[in-house]
Amino acid sequence: MSGLDETHDPRRTSWVESANGHRDFPVQNLPLGVFSADGTSRRIGVAIGDFILDLTAAEDFLDEEWREDLAHPVLNAWLARGPAAHGQLRQRLSELLSDERYQNDLDLCLIGQSEATMHLPCIVGDYTDFYVGIHHATNVGRQFRPDQPLLPNYKYVPIGYHGRASSVRVSGEPVIRPQGQRKPPEAVVPEYGPSRRLDYELELGMWIGRGNRLGDPIPIGEAGDHIAGYCLLNDWSARDLQAWEYQPLGPFLAKNFLTSVSPWVVTADALLPFRRAQPPRPEDDPQPLDYLRDEDPQPALGLSLEASLSSERMREAGQPPHRLSRGEASAAMYWTAAQIVTHHSSNGCNLQPGDLIGTGTLSTDSDDGLGSLLEISRGGKQPITLPSGETRSFLEDGDELVLTARADAEGAVGIGFGECRGMIVGVST
Amino acid sequence: MSGLDETHDPRRTSWVESANGHRDFPVQNLPLGVFSADGTSRRIGVAIGDFILDLTAAEDFLDEEWREDLAHPVLNAWLARGPAAHGQLRQRLSELLSDERYQNDLDLCLIGQSEATMHLPCIVGDYTDFYVGIHHATNVGRQFRPDQPLLPNYKYVPIGYHGRASSVRVSGEPVIRPQGQRKPPEAVVPEYGPSRRLDYELELGMWIGRGNRLGDPIPIGEAGDHIAGYCLLNDWSARDLQAWEYQPLGPFLAKNFLTSVSPWVVTADALLPFRRAQPPRPEDDPQPLDYLRDEDPQPALGLSLEASLSSERMREAGQPPHRLSRGEASAAMYWTAAQIVTHHSSNGCNLQPGDLIGTGTLSTDSDDGLGSLLEISRGGKQPITLPSGETRSFLEDGDELVLTARADAEGAVGIGFGECRGMIVGVST
Repeated sequence: MSGLDETHDPRRTSWVESANGHRDFPVQNLPLGVFSADGTSRRIGVAIGDFILDLTAAEDFLDEEWREDLAHPVLNAWLARGPAAHGQLRQRLSELLSDERYQNDLDLCLIGQSEATMHLPCIVGDYTDFYVGIHHATNVGRQFRPDQPLLPNYKYVPIGYHGRASSVRVSGEPVIRPQGQRKPPEAVVPEYGPSRRLDYELELGMWIGRGNRLGDPIPIGEAGDHIAGYCLLNDWSARDLQAWEYQPLGPFLAKNFLTSVSPWVVTADALLPFRRAQPPRPEDDPQPLDYLRDEDPQPALGLSLEASLSSERMREAGQPPHRLSRGEASAAMYWTAAQIVTHHSSNGCNLQPGDLIGTGTLSTDSDDGLGSLLEISRGGKQPITLPSGETRSFLEDGDELVLTARADAEGAVGIGFGECRGMIVGVST
Repeated sequence: MSGLDETHDPRRTSWVESANGHRDFPVQNLPLGVFSADGTSRRIGVAIGDFILDLTAAEDFLDEEWREDLAHPVLNAWLARGPAAHGQLRQRLSELLSDERYQNDLDLCLIGQSEATMHLPCIVGDYTDFYVGIHHATNVGRQFRPDQPLLPNYKYVPIGYHGRASSVRVSGEPVIRPQGQRKPPEAVVPEYGPSRRLDYELELGMWIGRGNRLGDPIPIGEAGDHIAGYCLLNDWSARDLQAWEYQPLGPFLAKNFLTSVSPWVVTADALLPFRRAQPPRPEDDPQPLDYLRDEDPQPALGLSLEASLSSERMREAGQPPHRLSRGEASAAMYWTAAQIVTHHSSNGCNLQPGDLIGTGTLSTDSDDGLGSLLEISRGGKQPITLPSGETRSFLEDGDELVLTARADAEGAVGIGFGECRGMIVGVST
């Protein structure tokens, strides 16, 4: 595997004991995030086991040249530095957190994650959502257009659209049920009211590092240098609003009331051991046009994604969350991360540090791997039954949705993304 | 007319002599913008005749409470203050620029517009484009869907979608011809290359002042308080990219390579004398749903919009720009500004100070009032002939497009918006 170094060494352990064997944050992960604790202002930190290393408190141990950008209350300036600096910081953090000589000093710079509040890691200049989950596109397309689930452009164009940056929020923020216009097929005129078909969408998010200038497309061979890291993304969706409003300009109010992301930026470096070949395209599918030809032999990520739901009644009864789906990201993505970035900039559109790009819902071709209730309940026609005996076609007030992701590979220490969590709150009308 | 005060008095003149009788910037206008000159950093100024009053240089004449926000290099903080402060500043500026006692001091704070560089007035957090030009929607719809030009939702939903904030640029920035995938109907597969059907779209832009909190829709009666001002907006569009990519999620790369705006924020206050009744809806059209019922008796703007084109050859021959269209904004807009803002926030979506909202292309129902070449050339089938003898279906390299707007009303001094200008630059491939 190219690019692997001692930071990925599975034998490396941390003097932060909870990190060793930690589901998400062993010393091989080292994701960056923005936190506050005890009334302090927002600071950049790195997750290690059950703790956060406060990079402002630990600044004496970091390269002087990095300190200004790492003292910001958001990651944008740091992400702008590009892969060389990111790699150096990773090496330094790995050394600091594994070498016991640093324990006495750095113990003082650790904050328990349970005592910290996490914030959005970046000021999101622009948020774009793609649609590269081919099974999702097929499942949804079948409901809207039974005769032509996948449109003719799908296998040539990584389809995407702009989302709302102002309503991107960090995991844990309440999901206020949106109101809007909806017109069931049997109604003569639409009405305005709370959405009755509120859904989640299980997605991966990408955080853009270095940007490009307006008018300068990013060649596919360089696209990876512009992806600083990844997160989980929940593209909350009001299906009834969407069905009525989406033609001809695409989803709008059905989506822009909230987008949730997990707080930790899992770096592209941390994911190196989990890269793998892209599943081959079916024989009859067209090859990508030249500008989208990804020559990287391992452009896909070995990531397992999971979504779970708990209702209020389940929580009161002490029942654990009910798993809605689990699936492999690479089995879902028709286009790679590099293809997404290159296509986005292929007309000269400028990406900026801290921009957020969603993959679109990542459903596999299996019934166990469907990334939205719209798919799981077959458009609401086949409700599921929860352990509490309740049924669900779409989300009810009090339901909490949790997304997780885990990277595993032979010979590597597996890492996780943490959680992307959100609970539905009703509106008083 | 409610809300009119001495700042609108047509008898008021300025000691800045070029302001009196000025096409765009008499003392009744007083738009705000961001400029730099002689290597100074960016500053907020107000246009008066051929000059800009530098509000940083003139700060001693302004309320102390305003100075910090007006000393920013962008207008966002000032726009956030809302209508009361905006009205007070307008009154003060009108007094300062009309009363000759201030001439000696403030003469020193004037900069010639020809010596200044204008910048984008705000950091655009989010840019949304609507589609409220019903004749445009019908004309375009007819080309894509001859049997159903207007979709069933159009007369209920103010249709809009998110655009790209990072590529919003101020008038004068070059328009680099975008590349992208295009598939003419006769082609079997798409190809990637420079757009062959590059177009402009004549729109009004709105600048959001005070924002709303996530989850708190803006009632229609309060929407006006959130609109700080207006500008001209050119939604450059690559029609060949658009036709191939836009389904099912809407336009993306066909639009996000550049959006141009005029530099001056013409305030909602300055436009008060030009407000008028909304043209009545055709009898068979549905009434707006309650949340969109605009009770304002004069929600429309008496604004005449114009687009002109000059080719390189025309400029070399000393020929003036060729007018492509002229039309009334209110004759084009099916939905009012307040309906746009209220609909946008009706699901709880939060608008923020400095957000930009486009109306969509404003074409009238007359052949003289079509706001895009797609409509003027009937989808490219009927090229127009320029004074140079050249023909145009779409924009060629070297073409320069200029948008202007003018507000006129009986008993008022007319005002203008300045220009939104852009020249097409070819790509070397």
